Amino acid sequence: MNNHEKDPVISLDLMGGDSGPAVTVPAAKRALLISKNLNLILVGREQECLPMLKKHGLLDNSRVKFIATPNVISSEEVPSHALKHSQDTSMRKAIELVADGSAHACVSAGNTGALMAVSRYILHTVPGIDRPALAAFVPNEKKQRTLLLDLGANVECDAKNLVQFALLGCSEFSRISNTERPKVALLNIGVEHNKGREYIKKADAILTGLKEVDYIGYIESDSLFNSDADVIVCDGFTGNIALKSSEGLVRLIVKTAKQRYRGFFSLPVLLILKGVMSKLYPDEYNGASLLGLQGVVIKSHGSAKIKATANAIIRAQYEARIGLSDRFLELLGKNLF
Amino acid sequence: MNNHEKDPVISLDLMGGDSGPAVTVPAAKRALLISKNLNLILVGREQECLPMLKKHGLLDNSRVKFIATPNVISSEEVPSHALKHSQDTSMRKAIELVADGSAHACVSAGNTGALMAVSRYILHTVPGIDRPALAAFVPNEKKQRTLLLDLGANVECDAKNLVQFALLGCSEFSRISNTERPKVALLNIGVEHNKGREYIKKADAILTGLKEVDYIGYIESDSLFNSDADVIVCDGFTGNIALKSSEGLVRLIVKTAKQRYRGFFSLPVLLILKGVMSKLYPDEYNGASLLGLQGVVIKSHGSAKIKATANAIIRAQYEARIGLSDRFLELLGKNLF
Repeated sequence: MNNHEKDPVISLDLMGGDSGPAVTVPAAKRALLISKNLNLILVGREQECLPMLKKHGLLDNSRVKFIATPNVISSEEVPSHALKHSQDTSMRKAIELVADGSAHACVSAGNTGALMAVSRYILHTVPGIDRPALAAFVPNEKKQRTLLLDLGANVECDAKNLVQFALLGCSEFSRISNTERPKVALLNIGVEHNKGREYIKKADAILTGLKEVDYIGYIESDSLFNSDADVIVCDGFTGNIALKSSEGLVRLIVKTAKQRYRGFFSLPVLLILKGVMSKLYPDEYNGASLLGLQGVVIKSHGSAKIKATANAIIRAQYEARIGLSDRFLELLGKNLF
Repeated sequence: MNNHEKDPVISLDLMGGDSGPAVTVPAAKRALLISKNLNLILVGREQECLPMLKKHGLLDNSRVKFIATPNVISSEEVPSHALKHSQDTSMRKAIELVADGSAHACVSAGNTGALMAVSRYILHTVPGIDRPALAAFVPNEKKQRTLLLDLGANVECDAKNLVQFALLGCSEFSRISNTERPKVALLNIGVEHNKGREYIKKADAILTGLKEVDYIGYIESDSLFNSDADVIVCDGFTGNIALKSSEGLVRLIVKTAKQRYRGFFSLPVLLILKGVMSKLYPDEYNGASLLGLQGVVIKSHGSAKIKATANAIIRAQYEARIGLSDRFLELLGKNLF
């Protein structure tokens, strides 16, 4: 048992997300109540954080340490600019605490592109991985769940990125689900080999030739929640569009249900929708992993509320318990491209 | 009143779709029953079509004409190859009937890429439009409906294509809904100007400068069904991913509802879902328009069943009644790029 299995330390960027410390501080308190051996290093700007930390009684909690940083990365900043000016920001400090071994994992709800750029700069990628990918589970009718990546960390991708994401996804799925050979698919707009964009076709050809990977070909996005795949791979733009369209539709259905069926009938309808939403919605199932880094970084949803943010912290604690190495990652050392 | 307002003639590619004449022939019969002044020119391969036409009593129907073509474009063919070998195919013949004035509109459930390539070759685009776009309505919580394009006709797009799609979409929405200035948005993975792919940012800059267009900026796909936009524009890959992800999620919810709530409670749940589905699902709301052509071409869903295919024919009849010209199209003559 490693030290952090007994006493996990998570660094939390208090300034991230739409509401900043107003959400992250009470979320930290909630996570500490849920997880009795959790330790937190909270990072943020003194003027906004101290009043909240005081209000929630976290200043004199022995499991909490606060580190003041003067700067913040805003949600509007482009990643390159954010990285260049990341010195003394809450996000960077939270990541540095992972790099220097003070924390076992870091959680931030800040600017996704900046989180990727800074994490990559500070923690470096696993050898063989060019860019980290954001991964989260989506519900699957046929199986318990499917890991979808990338969800927005990489707006533009090439074939090499997609193949690396496939290996990262397999590694992660295998680790979490004890599945020897996870089935991996590429998201595309047709199932025939000639369909889709060029970089997807190239990735298809490379994955088809990799006997170590159980590659099952293309899936279309109407099979996103009903496929044989354990891992579904796409570029970050596409993953973001796919996941958020579905979220939008669930919201539409919930509104329609509430408007049309008040009272007696509304309960079963809302219960069903809640069941599906709990797997898709940030408030219920928050925290996407930034895979491919030499350290654990969890992205919390920008609009996540207290409960959801606490979930991301708990999730980080779980991730922090397990090592990253995997036989799929050995493949990355080989010359595939 | 034009001639075709009294007696619309629609050409139907009997060979298109997953089931071919087994679906298209009974769908033609259904459309003829629904619409009393509809005339159909049915096009397909004799050996498969004649038995079905005979079975459904369409051979001696005075409102039906059958044209035999020996060839068929398969769903696997790449558009360029399909176009090159399109001579004497049912799809091409159906389109040629629109070009030579024999039909007012054409319906096909065949290969989308091929349908675009052949339509463009035979009918040509409206002056100022480089490529046609596939457009369909999606439900919108705030408004009755939103026109989404492109849905898969153009896998790769540049800024110019997106701006042209915006103008085509505005033209179509304005025509159908009697809205003087439809609000148009670009689909992206963030709402800030610096977010997203390069060609989207360029289109954003061009549209921002067009005072004739009521451009409202980016929307993210979680607002696809809940925005102020009348028209939402994206490349065909993205549109296909967004729409099909949502379809997939509705299917997941329906399955979950059926499994968990049998009997008494299942009725209201399924009614609500049916209400939403009827706006998204091919069986209930079929037929996307290929906009930007000098002629009306309707794409029926490949998996559409009899009722849905009949709906696409009825839709084509409606489209055939109205001219294409519009003040937005004048803009296309100007040098925007």
